[in-house]
Amino acid sequence: MELIQFKSIGQLFRHKRRVYLDSNATTAVSRYVRQRMNHTLKHAYGNPSSLYEVAQKAARLVEEARQKVAQSIRAQPAEITFTSCATEANNQVLKSLSLYCAPNRRTIVASPIEHPSVMETLRWLQTQGIQVKYCPVDHQGRIAINELEKLIDTNTFLVCCMLANNELGTIQPIAAISEIAHRHGAWLMSDCAQALGKIPIDVVQLGVDYATFSAHKLHGPKGIGALYVKNGCPITPLVHGGHQEDGLRAGTESVHNIVGFGAACDQVNQLLHATERIGRLRAELVKKLQLIHPEMQVNTPQEGSLPNTLNLTFPGIDNTGMVAALDFSGIAVSAGSACSMPENKPSQVLTAIGLSEQEARESIRISLGNKTNRRDILYASRIFAQQTRKQTLTVNLVTPKQLTLEDLKGEMNYILDVRPAALRKKYRGLIHSHAISFFELNLHLKDLPRNKPILLVCQHGNLSYAATYYLQNKGFTNVSSLWRGISGWLEMYGEAE
Amino acid sequence: MELIQFKSIGQLFRHKRRVYLDSNATTAVSRYVRQRMNHTLKHAYGNPSSLYEVAQKAARLVEEARQKVAQSIRAQPAEITFTSCATEANNQVLKSLSLYCAPNRRTIVASPIEHPSVMETLRWLQTQGIQVKYCPVDHQGRIAINELEKLIDTNTFLVCCMLANNELGTIQPIAAISEIAHRHGAWLMSDCAQALGKIPIDVVQLGVDYATFSAHKLHGPKGIGALYVKNGCPITPLVHGGHQEDGLRAGTESVHNIVGFGAACDQVNQLLHATERIGRLRAELVKKLQLIHPEMQVNTPQEGSLPNTLNLTFPGIDNTGMVAALDFSGIAVSAGSACSMPENKPSQVLTAIGLSEQEARESIRISLGNKTNRRDILYASRIFAQQTRKQTLTVNLVTPKQLTLEDLKGEMNYILDVRPAALRKKYRGLIHSHAISFFELNLHLKDLPRNKPILLVCQHGNLSYAATYYLQNKGFTNVSSLWRGISGWLEMYGEAE
Repeated sequence: MELIQFKSIGQLFRHKRRVYLDSNATTAVSRYVRQRMNHTLKHAYGNPSSLYEVAQKAARLVEEARQKVAQSIRAQPAEITFTSCATEANNQVLKSLSLYCAPNRRTIVASPIEHPSVMETLRWLQTQGIQVKYCPVDHQGRIAINELEKLIDTNTFLVCCMLANNELGTIQPIAAISEIAHRHGAWLMSDCAQALGKIPIDVVQLGVDYATFSAHKLHGPKGIGALYVKNGCPITPLVHGGHQEDGLRAGTESVHNIVGFGAACDQVNQLLHATERIGRLRAELVKKLQLIHPEMQVNTPQEGSLPNTLNLTFPGIDNTGMVAALDFSGIAVSAGSACSMPENKPSQVLTAIGLSEQEARESIRISLGNKTNRRDILYASRIFAQQTRKQTLTVNLVTPKQLTLEDLKGEMNYILDVRPAALRKKYRGLIHSHAISFFELNLHLKDLPRNKPILLVCQHGNLSYAATYYLQNKGFTNVSSLWRGISGWLEMYGEAE
Repeated sequence: MELIQFKSIGQLFRHKRRVYLDSNATTAVSRYVRQRMNHTLKHAYGNPSSLYEVAQKAARLVEEARQKVAQSIRAQPAEITFTSCATEANNQVLKSLSLYCAPNRRTIVASPIEHPSVMETLRWLQTQGIQVKYCPVDHQGRIAINELEKLIDTNTFLVCCMLANNELGTIQPIAAISEIAHRHGAWLMSDCAQALGKIPIDVVQLGVDYATFSAHKLHGPKGIGALYVKNGCPITPLVHGGHQEDGLRAGTESVHNIVGFGAACDQVNQLLHATERIGRLRAELVKKLQLIHPEMQVNTPQEGSLPNTLNLTFPGIDNTGMVAALDFSGIAVSAGSACSMPENKPSQVLTAIGLSEQEARESIRISLGNKTNRRDILYASRIFAQQTRKQTLTVNLVTPKQLTLEDLKGEMNYILDVRPAALRKKYRGLIHSHAISFFELNLHLKDLPRNKPILLVCQHGNLSYAATYYLQNKGFTNVSSLWRGISGWLEMYGEAE
């Protein structure tokens, strides 16, 4: 007998088609970028700080990339510092300025729908004596300019507002915010990671003092970011050590990643060129989905948003199941920001714009890419229709409430933990559970009991959802999936156990 | 007329052979690593935090790499956190522990020959109220164990000592240091970046609580490091934001770099296997050089050092010129740590082991790689012989002292700044200087005066050294190079100007 081990969910379900609609989480590295990176890895392996030939070659590539990144946002090359990601760049601005200003000013005014890399850093700064005031946003996530004006005072050293929101796509009126911040003697920092490649950026016109960027949002590699610091604005290192990046970021430069970022910026105009088409596809998708599901609620503003982003609420449909169900059909969408995923909490962005926790858990983000075409949209609409009309998958769900600690101890169900081994080692599981990785499930069908209810569990309830569907199709009649997974269950019972 | 623009020094001088002897600065990415990275970039572009297939594929690759890295140092996968480089990992341990321990203990005891990423972070921590005591080292860089015992007191929370020194290759008695640190209730952190792949590492046997690693020292990519934190030891994030790396390092994972690190660790045993051969080549090189230059002084201990590393002092021979001269012949060596290069100061490691500033400026580091062979050593010896016996290059050098501000103002010389454009934009130059990039020099020979002395300058005096040699060969008789370059000159006159 030949044993075939699954390498992916895709293999398990044999998709006909793949449609990647989560470009705000990350993008595929373009062929051009990949080739430039590979070439650099092969030929410019020197340490840019060294003096000899192969090293100076690497140094030159770094400076060329700096020029390209600067050009794409209309900055001077000397205003660009490469960091390991936008998250690091956000950390650097917030922490560096807090330390620099602390003797005189100690308040940051921020939008409440910033990326986790800003929100968590602000939370940490609060433990270090910095005051953070959050300015309200309207129901589409746009900052309330009038409120902002009232919140900034002589103690405020920084206003912090992203250019475009990652979950909603909402574009903020940065130039107006800049005017207010500067009038009060505060600097303005703007996380532009989600905007670059989707709308034109001119840091001078925007009037930002600090801006942060990430290559992997525009078909560049993961693990490289850029920090723009307007000439003359104060900044100190977050990572101390060698003299690299003009003393602002120590550590041997990730030359191939930097080259990849530069190459991605070479293609910014092409990306911007595609946005009109993308915007039309988005409008078409909204229309189709509204026909299928008239109760659907669009959280993304039609005007003043990233043309590729669409945040939708489907009343009555849980987003974890929805993401898993769409994944069966090869469609990748997300239930929120990838960076806040494993917490399994409702999106803070969505609750900040006034959605209930329930509504936030019924919302998904669809973000189109430059390769998305009309067939993708038609396919996605069709699958959406099937899912939201419950024409296909029917998976029994057990909620954490329905699975008490006593149930576990009584071994009422055969609990099957389908998490991959690495996750299982890292995070605790449920007591009395059996373990078979999702990816090896097909090899162990004969080991599963047919006379007892099987409850499939995983970290967040997505893999177990898929696995339940699979087992149902293999003739297991009494199988169900734990909704919101082990982390949801532990949230409810964790302390009691 | 066809114009050929030089792309590198190599092209200018048409090397017959290239010998890379600076493996401690960085290493070439191995073919295997490159292929694994390229494959990941192509096929696993998902964000590991997302829930669907292509994302979970990326997540799985990250965990596989974590296992490989853990295995190569005999740690548990859960004890490994990926960071953007060893520098960041060093920063994280030092800053995190300082904050954690500050209410009770405020002293770090460190070796005085740590990497800049540790030294500069310690300097910064001193501005934040942390006391740092440096333990003396002997003339070969080995830490004075007896002194260490005396320095650690009840206020000490951390002892910080690298496993192997990057400039000297000296291996420290970490297990003994661990015993002393733990006896006094202090933790031990060890920067192992330079050791991995050169000597076997077992973090448990070493008794370290924190250890840091970097992929690019063992034929992995630049821009990825690992932090080992012994199970149970405290650690907090340096970079706040998303939940990635178990909440210890925010920011989307650089999946291809992580995969590259894992692949490099796959090859650790091969690398270790080669060290015996490398050690023999090093011994042969020492013998040959000693015959050529009997006054040569070996700073690296023969026993208890990385088998590939050789630190040598050549009395009377300036190391900047030496590095440039060897580069002409395709040989890459270094004048110190790449990470402390542009400061143009004598090596702090060498002065710490008792060398004078003069001697430190006459010292070079040769670090062999796993591909170094006997022909490389013979070639290098021959070129060394030519250089140290002054058989080949004779380049007129002008010292900063010999070039006063008045000389510049009087335009006695035709000052030619040969720095590449990027460097020229970034750092100030000398007044009344003309600019032709080194790499375009051949295109502008007819623009240079034949009736006036030409003084070539660059940032550190290396490129101008090469350029002077080139012009001499093109028939310019009155050319010279500014020793230690613009940065050396500005150090002397910068304030006056």
